[in-house]
Amino acid sequence: MGFWGIEVKPGKPHPYHSDNVEGRLYVTQATLGLGSSTERSILQCSVGHKSPIFLCSLLPDRIESCSLNLEFKDELVAFSVIGPRSIHLSGYFVSDEGDHLR
Amino acid sequence: MGFWGIEVKPGKPHPYHSDNVEGRLYVTQATLGLGSSTERSILQCSVGHKSPIFLCSLLPDRIESCSLNLEFKDELVAFSVIGPRSIHLSGYFVSDEGDHLR
Amino acid sequence: MGFWGIEVKPGKPHPYHSDNVEGRLYVTQATLGLGSSTERSILQCSVGHKSPIFLCSLLPDRIESCSLNLEFKDELVAFSVIGPRSIHLSGYFVSDEGDHLR
Amino acid sequence: MGFWGIEVKPGKPHPYHSDNVEGRLYVTQATLGLGSSTERSILQCSVGHKSPIFLCSLLPDRIESCSLNLEFKDELVAFSVIGPRSIHLSGYFVSDEGDHLR
Amino acid sequence: MGFWGIEVKPGKPHPYHSDNVEGRLYVTQATLGLGSSTERSILQCSVGHKSPIFLCSLLPDRIESCSLNLEFKDELVAFSVIGPRSIHLSGYFVSDEGDHLR
Repeated sequence: MGFWGIEVKPGKPHPYHSDNVEGRLYVTQATLGLGSSTERSILQCSVGHKSPIFLCSLLPDRIESCSLNLEFKDELVAFSVIGPRSIHLSGYFVSDEGDHLR
Repeated sequence: MGFWGIEVKPGKPHPYHSDNVEGRLYVTQATLGLGSSTERSILQCSVGHKSPIFLCSLLPDRIESCSLNLEFKDELVAFSVIGPRSIHLSGYFVSDEGDHLR
Repeated sequence: MGFWGIEVKPGKPHPYHSDNVEGRLYVTQATLGLGSSTERSILQCSVGHKSPIFLCSLLPDRIESCSLNLEFKDELVAFSVIGPRSIHLSGYFVSDEGDHLR
Repeated sequence: MGFWGIEVKPGKPHPYHSDNVEGRLYVTQATLGLGSSTERSILQCSVGHKSPIFLCSLLPDRIESCSLNLEFKDELVAFSVIGPRSIHLSGYFVSDEGDHLR
Repeated sequence: MGFWGIEVKPGKPHPYHSDNVEGRLYVTQATLGLGSSTERSILQCSVGHKSPIFLCSLLPDRIESCSLNLEFKDELVAFSVIGPRSIHLSGYFVSDEGDHLR
């Protein structure tokens, strides 16, 4: 089990393959990165060739953090940002070897 | 198990039948789509002939994302939008074949 | 298992007896109904003769939705609104016959 | 199982001993009480002689409700308010006799 | 089982080793501490030599509290604040001896 976090930067889609962590990933928070632009930054998630889906929209000086509740296991997705600032994603993963019996 | 997402467009109710995914669907987030209108967009859910129930109300430039916590299994519902902009719904599904023992 | 939703109107306390649904009810979201008043509307819950407890306060044009996390089983409560506009409550119920083993 | 709620008033710390309810208490929401002051009210929690910890900060006309996620069992804590207005806490308890198998 | 809380002060990274509590820690809320500065304060989490990840961004007079959903077990992390004001973290821990079977 452990803390998990990435920074998704504008123009740099961040692929996530759950094979990278052993077990299940819970993504629970998105927070706007540093910067001076006051334009919104939108986090989106793409699976294969489907249209990307917006996960949250962060507004500088208004709403800079957002709770999420996503679970990933055995799949390949890509996170990306529409807008000028990066978005930090955080959460935790739980290994399959039974350290999270609930 | 997998990521799930749809875009619900104004004037186009989006039926959801949980038979489409094998197992249980968790809808956990709503985010305003792109557009220039500053009017609110409201997400609602209808079951059969009952009055639709509002799930969230998104305000451009103020509150553009909203956490949800809904579970669907073996039922037919329709999501629709009141207002000018689309709303992206996201979440995940968990198959019944036991990949989500918790 | 199924979607659940009600509209609680000002001046009309809405009794809820969990016998009405078979199993356990999860109330997870409150959203302001339509209307032109810009005054706040407060959702409250009463049990028997105790003082009502505020569950959330919704502000037109500012905060029109609110996540909740309440579970009900085998009890009689009443939801009511203080203020000019109705509040939509949504969530889901899970029957006792074992369709929600987690 | 049942709904739980208290109103914590300024200047009146509200002790909570989980022996008062049989089982486990989930505190899931805080909402600002009525009043005309526009100053913030902060909810805090104290355990023994440790410094109190802020749980949320509510701002009249801006953010008047806040989701919480706290569980209590077999412990003595005290909730109190810094600021001019009361704060309503709500949630639910689950008895130990097994009515909440999940 | 028990309530857990710390105050993370600017310039003083707060190490957290989950060995300090017996079992699993759930961090569920962040709230801005007292102070007069109106600049944002950002909570971040570091693991080893990796870049710190932002967990939330709190804005005085706008958004002073934020829900989190993090779980920690058997790991060493450090919480720190970027900005002028402290951030209170709260949540609860659950011991491994089985008092939280769910």
